[in-house]
Amino acid sequence: MYSMQAIGYVRSPYREPKDVPKGLGAKHEAEGALEILPEYAAGLADIEGFSHLYVLWLFDRAQGFELTASPPSDNRTHGVFATRSPRRPNAIGLTVVELLGREGSRLRVRGIDMLEGTPILDIKPYLSSIPAEKLRRGWLADAEERRGS
Amino acid sequence: MYSMQAIGYVRSPYREPKDVPKGLGAKHEAEGALEILPEYAAGLADIEGFSHLYVLWLFDRAQGFELTASPPSDNRTHGVFATRSPRRPNAIGLTVVELLGREGSRLRVRGIDMLEGTPILDIKPYLSSIPAEKLRRGWLADAEERRGS
Repeated sequence: MYSMQAIGYVRSPYREPKDVPKGLGAKHEAEGALEILPEYAAGLADIEGFSHLYVLWLFDRAQGFELTASPPSDNRTHGVFATRSPRRPNAIGLTVVELLGREGSRLRVRGIDMLEGTPILDIKPYLSSIPAEKLRRGWLADAEERRGS
Repeated sequence: MYSMQAIGYVRSPYREPKDVPKGLGAKHEAEGALEILPEYAAGLADIEGFSHLYVLWLFDRAQGFELTASPPSDNRTHGVFATRSPRRPNAIGLTVVELLGREGSRLRVRGIDMLEGTPILDIKPYLSSIPAEKLRRGWLADAEERRGS
């Protein structure tokens, strides 16, 4: 057992899970902020040089977990580790955001898909990408094909 | 405070931090495995359709944290959230691996940069990339330029 604690909180336009765009073709263009607690603010030095960040956060409103999940983008169930379901054994979320600006310990970002008040666990610089042509996307690609999207 | 527990462990060729390639131009081509505990194995259903996975894991041999870090790729210090330092407020590591194959609850992967026995917290499918031409990489790009690499 390992204990984690919030280093800050997400400011998001989404108040409830139903507000967050989901399913095939959902775009995450929402703007919001990452408000880092004053005691961790020194950890943000030089972060403004990066265009994109990984945000690790807590699905704090998810209850328990299940080993299979039915994602909104498919009508079939899949193993939870092959999905982004909130109901996971360790309820950690991962989002890539674009960094728009920084004012002190507040990072303005685009690409928010978390709820208002979500606890932030960590921020890391996004350093490199797997080229799109090297990616296989399993059931998600199949679901897109079936829907003709 | 939130409690996390291992869903499995990394099998890695690296026994000690000094064994892991670090610094500018370090390549992570090492092969290893993610061994998921039997009670979570059902969560792997359909994962073999994905070429790449995010692995969230615990820096279980890091002691405490500091808000600034001196990465091996630079001779300057930066805020910990602008680095991949193990000594972070929540000691979570994030690695993108290529999935080579699955035998039951064991995933063979390439791109290991964790130590042997590292606790795994979560696995997620890697669904999309930020195009390389859209990335700015802050101090890392500066350090590469200064070293002419």
